[in-house]
Amino acid sequence: MKWRREGSRIFIRLQLGDEVLSSLAEVAGREGVSGGWFSGIGAASEVELGYYHLDRKDYDRTLVEGDVEFASASGSLGLVDGKPFVHLHAVVSDRESITRGGHLFRAVTGATLEFVLLLADGPIERTRDEETGLNLWRV
Amino acid sequence: MKWRREGSRIFIRLQLGDEVLSSLAEVAGREGVSGGWFSGIGAASEVELGYYHLDRKDYDRTLVEGDVEFASASGSLGLVDGKPFVHLHAVVSDRESITRGGHLFRAVTGATLEFVLLLADGPIERTRDEETGLNLWRV
Amino acid sequence: MKWRREGSRIFIRLQLGDEVLSSLAEVAGREGVSGGWFSGIGAASEVELGYYHLDRKDYDRTLVEGDVEFASASGSLGLVDGKPFVHLHAVVSDRESITRGGHLFRAVTGATLEFVLLLADGPIERTRDEETGLNLWRV
Repeated sequence: MKWRREGSRIFIRLQLGDEVLSSLAEVAGREGVSGGWFSGIGAASEVELGYYHLDRKDYDRTLVEGDVEFASASGSLGLVDGKPFVHLHAVVSDRESITRGGHLFRAVTGATLEFVLLLADGPIERTRDEETGLNLWRV
Repeated sequence: MKWRREGSRIFIRLQLGDEVLSSLAEVAGREGVSGGWFSGIGAASEVELGYYHLDRKDYDRTLVEGDVEFASASGSLGLVDGKPFVHLHAVVSDRESITRGGHLFRAVTGATLEFVLLLADGPIERTRDEETGLNLWRV
Repeated sequence: MKWRREGSRIFIRLQLGDEVLSSLAEVAGREGVSGGWFSGIGAASEVELGYYHLDRKDYDRTLVEGDVEFASASGSLGLVDGKPFVHLHAVVSDRESITRGGHLFRAVTGATLEFVLLLADGPIERTRDEETGLNLWRV
């Protein structure tokens, strides 16, 4: 991955083969930031999407076949147990422009992925919430 | 809902049961802001989506069954008749990652919804446009 | 199109009949900017979406019938061969809220399209990358 930081924004280009969530977390770690908002587009493969069942506090997972466009990706940078945590949702599309979407568990960058990260002034901590079973923003 | 304001950005977490549009408008009202741009992700239920017919100046409405992920939500904060007005479009996805999308009329927050609101320097007024039958930005 | 610039942000309203990509590039040119990030929603027609085949370095194209909502549009403003270049991906939805998505080649504004453009401090140059066959960010 490559990136350019400008004050409170970072423009990030992921490269062929970069896993999306870990790469974005690595950029955050290397820049020393743990709060912000992502928006991105591009192409990827090995996309795994999730759907959360609030009643059983667990995700259904869908593995999307083949190469897809990232028609939309957005979400937050936070801090869980002292480490940068990336929470992204995505809409992906196939060669017939048919879409799938959900919580993003994993994706491997295709030709390119372009992201902007708008930084918060400080960390956005996420802590365990018993009612939902998730780590939620402590804003 | 809970939020943290930092200069020209507000990070907002909606909570289980919060109606999305009215809650975001309430945050805006309580912060005294009426211009800006939203981006958000999370989960919701009771989602009602719209499609605008320009010829008859009216919306078709689709009620999406069950709990869904908000794969994408974005749009603007403006001012209509002196009150904050939230204009969001969304893409939602079900347990098989199948998506629906459109103009957002209503949604009730599920486990969580995370939003960022990037504030404009001042209000973005919306006024009636006869050609389209909509309240449009006066930028 | 109409727009309001505020420091490092431009709020843009496209009007009925404006082609999206060329209009956004024209705003950028007239404001003398060539780096940034777009997010937008609204309605459009004559939407042409693309899917990139990395192996043959070419796009499949899908022409979406009729009028659609722009449920999501996002992407970057860059500089190619000295001129502003708009790279958008979109998710569009029809009257039954069924979605299509991908790389945006063309769209004509319907009732309205609202965009925000968050400016980078300087140009984001895109140059030819032989491995992918695309003009990629030089960040």
